[in-house]
Amino acid sequence: MARIVMKFGGTSMAGIERIRNVANRVKTEWEAGNQVAVVVSAMSGETDRLVGFCKEASPLYDLREYDVVVSSGEQVTSGLLAIALQAIGVPARSWLGWQLPIHTSNAYASARIGTIDTVALNASLADGHVAVIPGFQGLSEENRVTTLGRGGSDTSAVAVAAAMNADRCDIYTDVDGVYTTDPRIVPRARKLSKVTYEEMLELASVGAKVLQTRSVGLAMKEGVRVRVLSSLEDNRDENGHRGTMIVGEEEINDVERQLITGIAADRNEAKVTLTNVPDRPGAVGHIFTPLAEAGINVDMIVQNIAHATGSTDVTFTVPRAELARALDVLQRNKARIGYDDLVHDTKVAKISVVGVGMRSHAGVAATMFETLGERRINILAITTSEIKVSVLIHEDETELAVRVLHTAYGLDAPEADAA
Amino acid sequence: MARIVMKFGGTSMAGIERIRNVANRVKTEWEAGNQVAVVVSAMSGETDRLVGFCKEASPLYDLREYDVVVSSGEQVTSGLLAIALQAIGVPARSWLGWQLPIHTSNAYASARIGTIDTVALNASLADGHVAVIPGFQGLSEENRVTTLGRGGSDTSAVAVAAAMNADRCDIYTDVDGVYTTDPRIVPRARKLSKVTYEEMLELASVGAKVLQTRSVGLAMKEGVRVRVLSSLEDNRDENGHRGTMIVGEEEINDVERQLITGIAADRNEAKVTLTNVPDRPGAVGHIFTPLAEAGINVDMIVQNIAHATGSTDVTFTVPRAELARALDVLQRNKARIGYDDLVHDTKVAKISVVGVGMRSHAGVAATMFETLGERRINILAITTSEIKVSVLIHEDETELAVRVLHTAYGLDAPEADAA
Repeated sequence: MARIVMKFGGTSMAGIERIRNVANRVKTEWEAGNQVAVVVSAMSGETDRLVGFCKEASPLYDLREYDVVVSSGEQVTSGLLAIALQAIGVPARSWLGWQLPIHTSNAYASARIGTIDTVALNASLADGHVAVIPGFQGLSEENRVTTLGRGGSDTSAVAVAAAMNADRCDIYTDVDGVYTTDPRIVPRARKLSKVTYEEMLELASVGAKVLQTRSVGLAMKEGVRVRVLSSLEDNRDENGHRGTMIVGEEEINDVERQLITGIAADRNEAKVTLTNVPDRPGAVGHIFTPLAEAGINVDMIVQNIAHATGSTDVTFTVPRAELARALDVLQRNKARIGYDDLVHDTKVAKISVVGVGMRSHAGVAATMFETLGERRINILAITTSEIKVSVLIHEDETELAVRVLHTAYGLDAPEADAA
Repeated sequence: MARIVMKFGGTSMAGIERIRNVANRVKTEWEAGNQVAVVVSAMSGETDRLVGFCKEASPLYDLREYDVVVSSGEQVTSGLLAIALQAIGVPARSWLGWQLPIHTSNAYASARIGTIDTVALNASLADGHVAVIPGFQGLSEENRVTTLGRGGSDTSAVAVAAAMNADRCDIYTDVDGVYTTDPRIVPRARKLSKVTYEEMLELASVGAKVLQTRSVGLAMKEGVRVRVLSSLEDNRDENGHRGTMIVGEEEINDVERQLITGIAADRNEAKVTLTNVPDRPGAVGHIFTPLAEAGINVDMIVQNIAHATGSTDVTFTVPRAELARALDVLQRNKARIGYDDLVHDTKVAKISVVGVGMRSHAGVAATMFETLGERRINILAITTSEIKVSVLIHEDETELAVRVLHTAYGLDAPEADAA
């Protein structure tokens, strides 16, 4: 007997036929004697429809009322899944966010989960009932409906798993696991059977869109073992395992440990360069302080060697979605910063190699630069962290860079395994 | 300053443009200094869509989960109306059934409203906030979502009006009031400016589908002054009044009092005749007891004078929707009842003349029979109550009967007022 949380996304819940498939998957786990809680998303497209209504009603909609409206999508699917489970002989009931309740902060539309009351839930599970819980929603300190922000159902699932001390949190999605890189770019990409929380955070935040980043952070903090697997196929690897387990580093043994776990490409960055910034103490602060105050995330920063004139060029990246606001901030602060020109480029991509193994290996960055250099791929900026090396390149060279790096780090699957 | 409940049906809430219209109507009442609670239905078609999902998930769906699913339609419109009100400068918030809460029985899908907590609601109203309340939903004694049955939003509105001691409950709908009869049958039908609860109950239950019958019964019990009016037009009568007020008999003065208030036609009945039933004590009980046990409502009953053979024919009506079940019950009890033939006819209509005035006037029934007799309309059965006389006729003669009775009781509008 294990305690399991199963989470199904919008594609899996889109229509009654698919909800019936989900019910059958749940039944299998329940029949095996497990205690099962299921966290569901709204039918795909439904949340967009509801958000559209709110925007149409008022561009400056009240977030509290927005949460009332958009949380209804998950309410519908949780009731329907409970009905579909009962129809195949599985005792089940829905528990809405306010019923458990799932306590959250008052930050409507982007609330943080606090505690989850599990007394009633545990009693119901102990009675052999499957609990169906709408994802994405909770209850504020003011007794009002909250939602967790887009993709929040992953976070709901991990939080429920932590609260009920689940043995595993299975996230069913439309891919069958986490790959060494995007298989659409590299057909010989391999599915990973295990990946650490930290690696997953780096891979997710740089573009491997399998799991909401916040849910991975929460899983790491709470020590929840998360598995990502397909709701459509039952592919198993050579060891009979499905999907990818996301676990603590201590669960990955030396044999399994790889130098590099995966390679991610992110096209959501834009490059900004300020030319001829005075090369004196405090100058850089005049650039980044107003950006920070405007809530704009600055990622990669490169400061060139000072010109003979006593000035320097400063280059950095911001999310493309925030570029217009960033340029506006910089223009308004031109006199204060004292630059000549403001240049930007959205045709860039950030390529990251990620792996907990690199902590103990020198040369990871060197391999990266050599490999890209051989292909004459120009590096515009570099950042590194303990388990990641990222470079900024021209967007046109994204696929080439990912492919050659995938081969260089020995990640290619044997020919026979190629997808 | 008055306390007002405004209720808007699905047609009025179908889409953001219409919700904006509703918001403007609410704003007018609020700007006049009134305390306003608004009760809303789901967008038209939405409840059917949600019910369809439940049926598709399982024909034997759990009513508790059905309520979770179908109550979401009103949750959406209440959030959207609150947003639309705020957008035009009216402070507003939604109060879901579980938030007030609106306590109900545990009869899921057809729950009865018990008490409504009004402490928070009254405080909010006193602060000048408009309260937007989803109709049709409540909270069971088990802390689960309930719904009140189709059309239940009218009942929600009346219950909220009673709980907050409102001066008036305005039901906005797609007709501009209650008419002396169906204007599609009689173009010279007149809109009534006032009608009593009891008349409305008779008119509603026999076919004037303006208000849910249960809501009228509740309004009568609680003494809530209900007004029915159009959400689309602003027609006013010669006295500057909109719609039709539904009030206690004491609010209708002698000048306003009419002998007959209205005429209703109901095509939802079916006639059943058993021939040669033994004419002895208890025989009729053998017919109606099993029907009652099967939950079938029997309405008009006619027992012919006994034949010379010591047997009699018994004729009665049942709702058409229950005819098949009624015939089945009667066939299974044939030996016990001891009839010869079982004959039925669905081509019948029940015509009712209704008016509190008839209590003090003889001759209402006589006028009816004479008028119909002059047109050679055959009367198949008769029932009467204190404020109603109903006859069963052939369905083909429905329009003719309604028209001649409308004229005979002096209900026709003057030529100039004709619609």
